[in-house]
This record gives sequence, C-alpha cells and structure tokens, in this order.
Amino acid sequence: MQKHSVIGQSVQRIESEEKVTGRLKYLEDLKLSGVLQAKILRSPVAHASIREIDVREAAKLPGVVAILTREDIVGNPAYDSHYGPIYKDQTIVAIDKVRYVGDPVAAVAATRADIAEEALDRIEVEYDELPAVFDAEEALAEGAPVLHDKVEMRREGFADVGGIRPVDGTNLCNQLHLSKGDIERGFRESDQVFENVFTSPSAQHSSLEPHTAIAQFEGPGRLTVWATVQNPFVIRDLLAEIFHLPLSKVRVISLNLGGGYGSKLYPKLEPLAAALALKARRPVAITLTREEVFQTLTKHAARIYLKTGVKNDGRIVARQCRIYLDTGAYAEIGPRVSKKSAYTAAGPYDIPNVQVDSYLAYTNKTPAGAFRGFGVSQSNWAHESEMDIIARALKIDPMELRRQNLLTEGSTAITGEPLYGLALRECLDEVAAAIEWGKRAEPENSDNPSLARGKGLACLIKTTVTPSVSSALIRLNEDGSATLYVGTADIGQGSDTVLAQIASEELRIPLEHVQVVHSDTDLTPYDLSTSSSRSTFHMGRAVQLAAEDIRKQLACLAAPVFQVGAEEIVLENQEARPRDGSQPGLSYKALFMKVYGIKGINLFGNGLFKTSTTQKSGELQTSSFWSIGAAAAEVEVDRETGQVRVVRYATAADVGKALNPLFCRQQLRGGAITGIGLALMEQLVYQDGLLINPNFLDYNLPRFLDIPEEIIPILIENPHPEGPYGAKGLGETALIPAPPAIANAIEDAVGVRITDLPITPERVFLAMQRKNKPTA
Amino acid sequence: MQKHSVIGQSVQRIESEEKVTGRLKYLEDLKLSGVLQAKILRSPVAHASIREIDVREAAKLPGVVAILTREDIVGNPAYDSHYGPIYKDQTIVAIDKVRYVGDPVAAVAATRADIAEEALDRIEVEYDELPAVFDAEEALAEGAPVLHDKVEMRREGFADVGGIRPVDGTNLCNQLHLSKGDIERGFRESDQVFENVFTSPSAQHSSLEPHTAIAQFEGPGRLTVWATVQNPFVIRDLLAEIFHLPLSKVRVISLNLGGGYGSKLYPKLEPLAAALALKARRPVAITLTREEVFQTLTKHAARIYLKTGVKNDGRIVARQCRIYLDTGAYAEIGPRVSKKSAYTAAGPYDIPNVQVDSYLAYTNKTPAGAFRGFGVSQSNWAHESEMDIIARALKIDPMELRRQNLLTEGSTAITGEPLYGLALRECLDEVAAAIEWGKRAEPENSDNPSLARGKGLACLIKTTVTPSVSSALIRLNEDGSATLYVGTADIGQGSDTVLAQIASEELRIPLEHVQVVHSDTDLTPYDLSTSSSRSTFHMGRAVQLAAEDIRKQLACLAAPVFQVGAEEIVLENQEARPRDGSQPGLSYKALFMKVYGIKGINLFGNGLFKTSTTQKSGELQTSSFWSIGAAAAEVEVDRETGQVRVVRYATAADVGKALNPLFCRQQLRGGAITGIGLALMEQLVYQDGLLINPNFLDYNLPRFLDIPEEIIPILIENPHPEGPYGAKGLGETALIPAPPAIANAIEDAVGVRITDLPITPERVFLAMQRKNKPTA
Repeated sequence: MQKHSVIGQSVQRIESEEKVTGRLKYLEDLKLSGVLQAKILRSPVAHASIREIDVREAAKLPGVVAILTREDIVGNPAYDSHYGPIYKDQTIVAIDKVRYVGDPVAAVAATRADIAEEALDRIEVEYDELPAVFDAEEALAEGAPVLHDKVEMRREGFADVGGIRPVDGTNLCNQLHLSKGDIERGFRESDQVFENVFTSPSAQHSSLEPHTAIAQFEGPGRLTVWATVQNPFVIRDLLAEIFHLPLSKVRVISLNLGGGYGSKLYPKLEPLAAALALKARRPVAITLTREEVFQTLTKHAARIYLKTGVKNDGRIVARQCRIYLDTGAYAEIGPRVSKKSAYTAAGPYDIPNVQVDSYLAYTNKTPAGAFRGFGVSQSNWAHESEMDIIARALKIDPMELRRQNLLTEGSTAITGEPLYGLALRECLDEVAAAIEWGKRAEPENSDNPSLARGKGLACLIKTTVTPSVSSALIRLNEDGSATLYVGTADIGQGSDTVLAQIASEELRIPLEHVQVVHSDTDLTPYDLSTSSSRSTFHMGRAVQLAAEDIRKQLACLAAPVFQVGAEEIVLENQEARPRDGSQPGLSYKALFMKVYGIKGINLFGNGLFKTSTTQKSGELQTSSFWSIGAAAAEVEVDRETGQVRVVRYATAADVGKALNPLFCRQQLRGGAITGIGLALMEQLVYQDGLLINPNFLDYNLPRFLDIPEEIIPILIENPHPEGPYGAKGLGETALIPAPPAIANAIEDAVGVRITDLPITPERVFLAMQRKNKPTA
Repeated sequence: MQKHSVIGQSVQRIESEEKVTGRLKYLEDLKLSGVLQAKILRSPVAHASIREIDVREAAKLPGVVAILTREDIVGNPAYDSHYGPIYKDQTIVAIDKVRYVGDPVAAVAATRADIAEEALDRIEVEYDELPAVFDAEEALAEGAPVLHDKVEMRREGFADVGGIRPVDGTNLCNQLHLSKGDIERGFRESDQVFENVFTSPSAQHSSLEPHTAIAQFEGPGRLTVWATVQNPFVIRDLLAEIFHLPLSKVRVISLNLGGGYGSKLYPKLEPLAAALALKARRPVAITLTREEVFQTLTKHAARIYLKTGVKNDGRIVARQCRIYLDTGAYAEIGPRVSKKSAYTAAGPYDIPNVQVDSYLAYTNKTPAGAFRGFGVSQSNWAHESEMDIIARALKIDPMELRRQNLLTEGSTAITGEPLYGLALRECLDEVAAAIEWGKRAEPENSDNPSLARGKGLACLIKTTVTPSVSSALIRLNEDGSATLYVGTADIGQGSDTVLAQIASEELRIPLEHVQVVHSDTDLTPYDLSTSSSRSTFHMGRAVQLAAEDIRKQLACLAAPVFQVGAEEIVLENQEARPRDGSQPGLSYKALFMKVYGIKGINLFGNGLFKTSTTQKSGELQTSSFWSIGAAAAEVEVDRETGQVRVVRYATAADVGKALNPLFCRQQLRGGAITGIGLALMEQLVYQDGLLINPNFLDYNLPRFLDIPEEIIPILIENPHPEGPYGAKGLGETALIPAPPAIANAIEDAVGVRITDLPITPERVFLAMQRKNKPTA
C-alpha cells in the first residue's frame, strides 16, 4: 500500500494566517466603484393582501437611485417574477400578498445605506390583513388560511427531488410516505408499544457573517453576482433561469464564508439585488442586518409522533413515525429537508416493520430551509429519545438496546436497499468507553446535594444528497506547481486545504505549491453544492481524477523521452523518471522543454465525479455514503434550578479516512457545540407570527462557559470504497445526536424525560416538580 | 469550403456598451480595503553615486506605513535585488547609483497618497554626481562614462533572445551582425552608391491609462498583483523569480487596458509594489502621474547609417545598415528591439548583398523598450526614405523602383531562410491606386501659391516574436453556452471579441453565448504576450484547437447515443445529430442528460499552439508570420511656414483573413494616426538628461485637426497556412511606413528631403531655405 505524504497529516489551514490577522477578505470588504447600497422594506404583518404601495415620497429623496416594487416585476420581460429552488413560490418582492413578518415588499437602492433606510420610511403600503397560521399541524387542518393558491414547479429541478409535489389549495407543501414490512402486524407482534410526541423549535444558523449580495450587469446580458453562498452553481443556474441568460453569462462568486450551516445554499438576496442593479444600471449591494438574517431563513420546527413496538427482550418489531415540519411561508429547500428527514426517521436500526409519514406545511412564519443535518436532527431527537424511554421501561441498558437493534452488514433500509459498511457499533462503543459508560456518574462536588449526574447515548445515520456531481480542474504549471479549480466554497470547514492536500498527494508535489481557486462559477468547474457533508467525498474524488488525468499526460510525455512505456514512468518530487532507475529523472520543466522546446507549457487535468441512485450491485442507492456516528454525554443537573451542565461530550464519526485529523476533530467539536446549544437553549420565539428574539442578546447561543471542558472527538476510520483514500463526510455528525444524548443523560441523572427542545432549566425544573408531586 | 457564420463579420466589441457608458472598470476603479497608496522618490540627476539616504523625518509623518530604500532590498532573503526581462540590470530601488533623471530611489506607502507625497519631500538623499552620456554613439565611444560595470543575464530568458549579450565594462548593451552575400563586392558592382544618415527621436506610447500596480501578499508565500500589463504571464514568471515563489503562488491580473502600445509589457511598478506590500504587510497601490509615465519607458531613439549600391536600372545590389539605438539607463526589452530592428533593416527587398550592424547602447536617459513596431519603424524610416532618394536620383518612379526590388516568392532573407506568401506587391499596388498614384497632386485652393502637394509611398516587412506559445481553455456549459479562458489582454484591440468570434464559429454557438475570461494568470492558460501583433494568429489558433477538443468530446459522447461513428456526428446549433439525418438532434443538455443522467456536466477543451524556429521544410523560420503592408500619403506643404498637412493616407495590410473587418480597419486607422504623429510632431526633448516635455501640453500628439480627412484602410486577404482561417496580425502595420511615406510626399511636393524625425514645420522651412540659397 502506498504511504501517504500529506494525506492524514494535520496541516494547518492554508488561510490561517490571513484569518487570524484579520486580513482575509470577506464579501463586505469588497468595494466596487459606483456601487449603490440597498435596503429592503419588509412586511410588518404575518398575512395580508397588499392594496397599495406608494413610493412617490421615497423617490424624491436625493440619493435614491432606484426603487423596486411589484410594479417593476409583474410582466417585466427581463425576468421571471417567481422563482425558487424546487417550487416557484417566491417572488423578488411581494406581489399581491405578504406571507410572514419580514416578507420583502419593496427595496431601495441609494448612494448611501442611510439614505436607502430613510427612503424605506417614506414608502406607504396599505395592507388588508388576512387570518394567519403559525403551526404546521394547524396549517394542514380543515379551514386553515391558505398561503399559496397554486404553486408552480421549477421546470428543471434537482436530480434528487423527484416525486415532490405540493397540494394546490392547501398548505401541504410536500408529503412522503415510506414503509417496510407490515406496520400493523408489527405492532400486533409487539410485547409493548411506546408512543411519544417530540417537538423541536425553529432555530437560527447563527453564521457570524450576515448575508450579502452585490449584483452588477455588464453590458447587455451579462450578470455578475458576488454573494455569500455555499452553492454558487445553484445560484448561477437559478439566476440564469430567472433572467433568461445563458449559463456563461451569469457569474456567481463566493469568497471565503464566515459560516454557512445551510443558510447560504439557495437564493436569498441575489435575484433582488440583480433586479435592482438592472433598474439602476449600476452595481447594487445588499447586506442584511442581524435582525433581517433572522427573518430570512430558519431551521424547520418539528412535531414528531413516534410509536414503537418491542419485544420484551428489547428487539424492536415496529416503528411508526408521523412527522410535521413547519417550512414557513415559502418552500425554499424544505421539500428536500422533509425527504431526508423521513429516510432515517426510524433511526439506525434494523426494524422489520416501519412506516414513515412526513408532512411539510406552509405557515405564516419565516421560511425554513437547510440547517446542519437537513431535517435529520429533528427525527433523531425523537427516535434516540424514545430508545432510552424503551430501555428504561424494559430495564435494559440503553447501550445494549441499541447494540441489539443496530443496522448491520446488509440490513435493509426503509427504501428497500441493503446497507453496507456502517461502523455504527464501533462509534457507539467508542463514545461509551470515552465517558466510562457503565460507571455511575458522580458529581465532583459531593457536598452539594442538589447536583446530580447522569450519562446518555445516541447514535445517528444520515444520507447525503444523491445523485450529485462534482468536477475539478487542475493546471500543472511548468515549474511543477499546480493550481486547483474547485467549486467548493470554503465556509470555514477547511475545504481549500483538504482539497489541496489531495492534489498535493496525487501529483506528488509540496502542499505549498498548490494554489486553490474556489467557488466562482466563471472560473471553476461545476459543483453541485457545499453542503450535506459532501465536499471531501465528492470533490475529493474529482480532484483525484483530475490529478490522475495530469499524471497520465505526464507519463505519456515522458515515455518516449525515456524510451519506456507510459506505465513505466514514475512521477515523484516534480520529476519524471523510468521505474527501473536506468536513467536520471527529469524535472517537469525539463521534460516540457525536451518535448515542446519552449517555455510556457501548462497541462490541464479534468476530473468529473458523479454518484448514482444505483449501487454497483444494481440495487437502489439512496445515499452515496451514509453519515454514521454516535455521541455520549455526561451531564450535571441542579435539582434546585433545573440548570443542566454538559460535563463531558464524546462524539464519534465514521470518517472513512481522516484526511486531516485536526480538521475532523475541529468539525466534531464545532458540531458538538451547536448540538449542545440546540439541546439546551436555542429557539426562535414567535408571538402571533412576530419573531420576538431576532438577535444574539435574546436568542441564546452557547457561550464559552456553556461549552464542556471535555469534548472528546473520536475518528473511526472505516474506509469507504468510493471515497478518496476511503474518506467520507462528517460535518453534521456531532451535532445531530447531542440533544437526545443530553436528554437521555438528564433522565439518567434526575429521572425526568424532556420531549420538547430546548431543554431549558425551566422545563427540567417543572418536570422534576411534576414527577415529585404526582397529580393523581 | 465551410461557410462562416460569424467569422468575417464586423460585429461590435463585446464591451462597447460598457466602454461608451463609462462603466467598464479599469484598474484605478479597483478599491481594495486597507490598501496603502505609494509614491516614488526619483533621482533629480542623470548619473550619480548615492552617498546617503535619510528617511527618519519621513518615517515620523503620521500615516506613513512603510518606506522602501536600498537598506531593505540589499541582502534581503525574501527577494532578489536585481531583475529584468533579459538582463538583471534593474533594481527595485536604486542601490549604489542612479542612472537617469527619474530613476526610483525610494518609495513610501502611506494611508493616503498626499501623505506619501509629503513623506517624499522629507527624504534626504545625498548624491555624488558623475559624468553622464545622452547619445548612443557617444556612449559607445572610448572614454564615455559607463553606466553598468557588470550586467548579469537572467537565468531563464525568452526563447527568442539567444545570442544576446552585453559587453561588460562598456555601454554596449547588445550588438548584432547579420550579413548575406558579399557587401564589398556588392558595392564594387554597383553603378551608384547612396549614403545617408537617418535619425528618429525617443517618443512616448501615450496610453490614456497610466501605469498602475496593486500588490498584496496573502499569507506566507502568496502574492497577488493587479497591474496594467499586456503580459501577465511574463510578469508572473518574473515576480516568481524575484520573490522565490512557485508559479502557482503568484497571481497577476490585468483588467481591460486603456492602451498599451508596448509600454506595459515588462515589469514596471510590480516588483516595487510587491516589496512595499511585503514590508507594510498590507496591500499597496501605485499609480504613476503622467510625468512619471514619461519617465518610465520610451521608444528607442535611433541613428541609422544607410549605404545602398544600385545599378542604373534601379536594381539594388548592396545595402549596408549601421544602426545605433539608445536604450537608456536599463536594458528592459531593448536587446530584442535591436534584434527585430536588424532583421528587416534592409527593407522588404530582394538584395543579394546585405550587411547589418546593430548597436544598442546604454545612456543616462529614460529606459527605452517596446513601442508599436518593436524597432522596425526606426529602420523602416531609413530604408523607405532612401528608396525615394535613389528613385529620384535614378529618375525612376518610386513605385517602380520598389516593385523592381520587392521580395518575391522564395526570396532569401538576410537570415538565410526562404520567404513565402508575402503580399507586398498587392499592398503597394492598392495603396498607390487609393491615392491615384501617377496623377499629379494639386492643391484644392489654387489661389494660394504657397501651397504645394506631393505623394509618397512606403512598404514594410516585420517579424513577430518566434518561437512562442499561446494556450486556451474552453468550458462548454450544459446549456451549450461556453466560457473561453485566454491570457490575451484586451488592450482596446478587440481581442475578447475576435477570440469569442472564433470560439463561436468553431463551437457553432451564438456569439452572445460565449463569455471571455482574460489575462489573469490564476485563471487562464499560459500565453506569452499581447504584443507583436501576435494574438489573433497565435491565440486564435489555440482557441480553434480548444474548440476542436470540445467537438471531439461531444462527438464521442454522441456517437454511442446515435449508434454511429464519432465522425458521423454533426454539431450545430447547440445540438448533436447524426450526419445522415436518420435521427433528430439532441441538445447538448439532453445529450449530457442521456449520457450522464444528471445535471451539472461541463466539458473542458484545451488548445496549445506553439510556433517554431523551423519551417515545415526544415529551413530556418525567424518569424511565424511576416507583417506585410504599404502606405501612401498625399501631403500639402505650406512653403511660407513649412507646415505639412496629410491630406490622404492609404494603408494596406496583408491581414491573411479579416476575422472582423471593422476591427482591422480600426487598427489600421489608429496605427495611421500614431504614424502621422511620429512623422510630424512627436519627440521627447532632453536637456542634459532632463526630459523637458513630459506632459501632453509640451509633447505634441496629433489632434483631431491633424488627422487626415481621408484615411483609407485596405485589407488584403492573403491567407496564411497556419493562421486561424488564414488570419495574420496587423496591429503595427499602418504606423511603421507613415514617416517615410510622408517624407517622400514632402520631397515630391517641395523638393526637400528631411532625414530627421519629426518633420516639424521648422525643419521643412529651414530645408527649403537651404535649398533655395545654396551655400556653395
């Protein structure tokens, strides 16, 4: 086996120095000459018809260059009024209705941001308020106010969203019904049946960098957009559709991002900025305030009804999941979220009879979209909580209960496909060992009788978007240095560095000789997306293939020079030489000079990697790889206050192969912290459709003191046959199981079961009160 | 033969609308956040040792961030102190000596330009003045002050500058000695021998956009430079050498340029800006004032001794040229200029005995470099003037004399190689016809007896840089639109448009579906240079090859789908179909979907075109194509004042094939105007080494009233076997023969021969006076 030189090394991020010195440029640092600043007028009501919009006073304000309202977009031949990644249910600004508090109604581009802001105050809008609905289940009930009369599908959508359909005249945005075995027979065969309801609230992605877009039309029919996006190609494709342009005439540029977490995947400000730029005939920039970020995209609130039938020995016989997801006022990517949530809603268990019914509903709230885990954390919260409820009832160790039911080699998924190579058992064993599972947890301060400790476990399985495409291009310069072109956006995860490591390894050149050009649709080959933990796996393979293309070309150039076959050429240290050592090596530069006789040669290598919905065996493949992991939490609960402190958190992921172990551990740490936040404090609070905590004072995020002293990231290397060097993605693994692991540990500590997230001190306190004073 | 759809069409420039509305971004429009503004302290004396530089007072000025002097660069391991495209005779700032008025001595980077400017005033420099020399011949004389004690060669230079060497301890920067036949025998066999001396002065390129460079170091070992450069790859390669970086770690970006004319080919501000940025740890911008542009690069002043032996019937038997070129204080690309000047110094004539001795001398003046025509206009001034002197003496029509001696098919050049396909005769005939050659020129206003009219001709031949490399990359997007990546800088010549026309033609897609990404070394494949009229020929071919690569890939994808051979696939209208019409076509998008089953496919096609110093026949090839042209001028001279007005100017170029006839004619018009300026008014005036007219008030350029009403551009289509569709370059063709054509017309009008450029009214007046009052 080949020894790797840079793969598996914990090298620092290429951009570290720029980042820590504050020199790295983010989009807000970009100052285009002549750029206008735009501000958005947003709906103050949750649901209303718009009677009139009067911009006359605003237009008089000196410095105002363009105002965009429905007047501009309805019937404008330059662009479509409706768009969206799956359904065309969004409009550039509101047309006849507003559907949530924060819905864009108009936008002003002015020479200064404060002028644009002032102009907003001068725009008069008359609304006719309509009844509104704020809960997914209520929205689907008979007689609920309907947000969209009719929703048009996008003509050419994503490959993995087939079968998704809204139901016109209702708020049912999407539904999914999966089953395996015979659920009724399963329940009949069960010794005990458990039924619980689990809820999780909307939450914020909390990227440090807010959404920004700068749009510029150059000449006729050429649009450039700089935007904080994880998916520049998706944005390009959508803008090309909306503005009726060839793909080559839309350029979307994403710089390094200050976090994404799913919030920067689909169009946000880009169509609006472009429409304003077209009207103003000048570049237009929009940067959201923090409040507006909160009003732009959230995580799906969920209510999950879970019913599980088990044998007394712990074998799970049947599981039924009914999922209600609240997608807010517009579908955005919600239908895919509901789909991914449903696939693994029964958990990583081999259950003969399963039924999943998933409902996605429009409500008059902020649109919900992708959020680290893509709907899986909601269903994981349910099934991993219920596992412990069952274990406690059956008096079986929760770890044993899981081990007994885990998916194993060749287990059949709810989709009917066999699953292979899932290192669930190893992940579970490792996290359990890391927190000394089986050893009773004791508070350090035994003098304080109000403190109690407990331990909890959870595991997870998650799909990645399939099928999908990543492509990479490499230019080998004549001095043996290389430029790598990838569509992957570096959102802080370190993709530039890991992809450069792969190029370095494959081309046998020093890492510091690789330059990465990233996420610019004019300059990099197509990549579907930086999301779904897919980049290392997909783009990593594309980089390998591109490098292989380069190596082949080098070998073909060198073979006649050395008078050996191309397969006899060894490439190492920026040199080509015959394998038999009969002749000294030639540097690539010298080789080019020998073959071409002149300076200025560069080779291009191209790599295309695509995944399929079919396994090699011919069977269905829902996911090109499965994210597998487990978490174990030790918590300390204060019986006096209900306050929960996570003392230790172990998180294991099946990474396939850790290409950069440091980054893998950082990913797991970061995910764990978000997971702890979602478990204990994060939630968006709405009152009659009004979000009342749209800022970081009122929206609680984990502070340094909330982070456990001991976060133990564990990397399980279980090589994937298709991943680069066996690697898989791990970006969402640590977060997903945190809430149930913590809830399970809380029950272990103080005997109460919390089924609603977040697990606030108040909820724990009240639950303890209820437990101690039984009502009956 | 294939009918072309967009080739040969006079489409408008892609960027026209942006240009005429002022929205096109030039480098000065780029505002980097945190950028410092730099100013350069320049030598006030022509030649001196530097005793001391005291920057203490300057450093105290608030806002000054970094000051660069020789202290910083001598012995600095981060970069080389000496550099240059051929010789390493330049330094980032002066070390022990200054060599011309304007030589950079120190530079200051500050938060504002005015602060940097003020800081310059506070820098104290003590000079020990040295004797200086301002004339090339004087500089080569015994005892002249020597500028450079020893000049180091650049380790890896250009492919075409072999044999170039300076002579240490002298001012001889380069010399060239070419010969053919036996020059002495030639003169012995001549009936008459003519000897003349022709001079031409230094001149300015007069680009509207001044030189600008912005340099930024990102992290360790990564340098980005935005610069007004025609040769981004040459600048990249030199910066990589100077700063010891891999090629992938230097990025040079050139935006659309506001003119180049040879002035923006080699490093100007880039090394200095980068050294300052490294010291300041912030980006640094430098923009030259117009005075500084004049102090940065000029056209070579020349003195040419020409001796021609002829038979009485007009046949030229021998020609001897002794050329002195003044390259100023630093070699820059001077040695190549002297080489190119020498190759065609005897003119486009088939002369059996030729000797050319060319000397390039350092002097204490502004460095001279490339200037439209690369040294050829200086020698053309000499030989085309002498042709008319001979014709007049032999009483032969100047056109007949030329026809009699022109190079013909298979004529041997001075380099010994046979020449083919030169449409000299056609060019000459066409320009002559255009001004009604043979018909006596008469002033329109016959009442004014002081006015006289005359006609004159000139022809030219010029090499292009050989060997050289251009490469192009094309991305075909799935909707059939394409992105074209070329290193060619669009300097106003329209390269983006013409290269897009070629891509459009070859890919059979609409022109407006082609996007061009240009002149950025991170993003585009290697290209030697945008100069030497080479881009259409070289890059045009590279684009054709890249498109061919794409077509092959498409045919290979489509063949199995249609179950025919790849050669049976026809690609048209963004569709693939079988040639026999048996099946309906598939759009590329549908084809990709059929083959790959998923969205997001893009194909990359790569084209590399290189020229060689060997013809296919095995014989030497000095030039991959020869620029061929002729000009005819009709002038009106005022006998009272010596004022010359060009009434008509016809200019013909052998363009091979006019890919965009509009652009070809624009090139010829633009060149004609510059040529008329050089003929009649342009010159840099030095007094003791001090340039006294470094601005557009004192340096005369043609104004609108100086431009002839009738400029007649004539395109001769004489297809070149290697050019795209037969095209050749034409950028320098109209300019070169203008001065001799005009001088010849003046002699035809008033009987005086001017041998020194520019032909000012004063010179004509004095010559007429001398002629009317013979001294003997």
